[in-house]
Amino acid sequence: MKKNVSGCSVEEAMLLLGGRWRLLLVSYLLDGPKRFNDLRRDMPNISQRMLTLDLRALEAAGLVLRTVYAEVPVKVEYRLTADGQRLHKVVAVVKEFGLWLKAERRPAAQDAA
Amino acid sequence: MKKNVSGCSVEEAMLLLGGRWRLLLVSYLLDGPKRFNDLRRDMPNISQRMLTLDLRALEAAGLVLRTVYAEVPVKVEYRLTADGQRLHKVVAVVKEFGLWLKAERRPAAQDAA
Repeated sequence: MKKNVSGCSVEEAMLLLGGRWRLLLVSYLLDGPKRFNDLRRDMPNISQRMLTLDLRALEAAGLVLRTVYAEVPVKVEYRLTADGQRLHKVVAVVKEFGLWLKAERRPAAQDAA
Repeated sequence: MKKNVSGCSVEEAMLLLGGRWRLLLVSYLLDGPKRFNDLRRDMPNISQRMLTLDLRALEAAGLVLRTVYAEVPVKVEYRLTADGQRLHKVVAVVKEFGLWLKAERRPAAQDAA
């Protein structure tokens, strides 16, 4: 992890949550525990390697818990920890902004209506 | 800009705001208009090139307005547009999460107190 140099809380948060996928990943885990392949289905364009790295980073930060069930075949499940659940507010406002952004970017279609 | 493939609003927002600096940049512009060098002082570790690219991306998205004043030497100022001001809620919750994250990461120091 890169060092936070400005000491700013926004930077601290974005060092962990910035990037294309991590907050999206958290938003899917807010629905409940998921297996690796569930997450790949939710986000078909993330590479297996990137998904693994992002899950590990969230796990290292204590936001995601990885549970391995002793079954055959082995079952691995990811869920948000209580700390990870704290992100529901971040996800909610970012989603709200994203919705506005998507609507805003179709002005031609709206004008034509 | 990469294409948003999942159609998800969180991804849409993070394509624009993800990365280490953009939301931090927005948070400084929430204080009021700034010149390029003010922003470099606020964020000493961002490279000049990165700051330029991030400002341009936010300008292209209609969130930041760049104003050139016909003075000698020329004065260039950046400010949030009304649309950019919409990000105050995102900045607020991300900052809140970052504050918690910073406190959380000093448990040893707190335990010793």
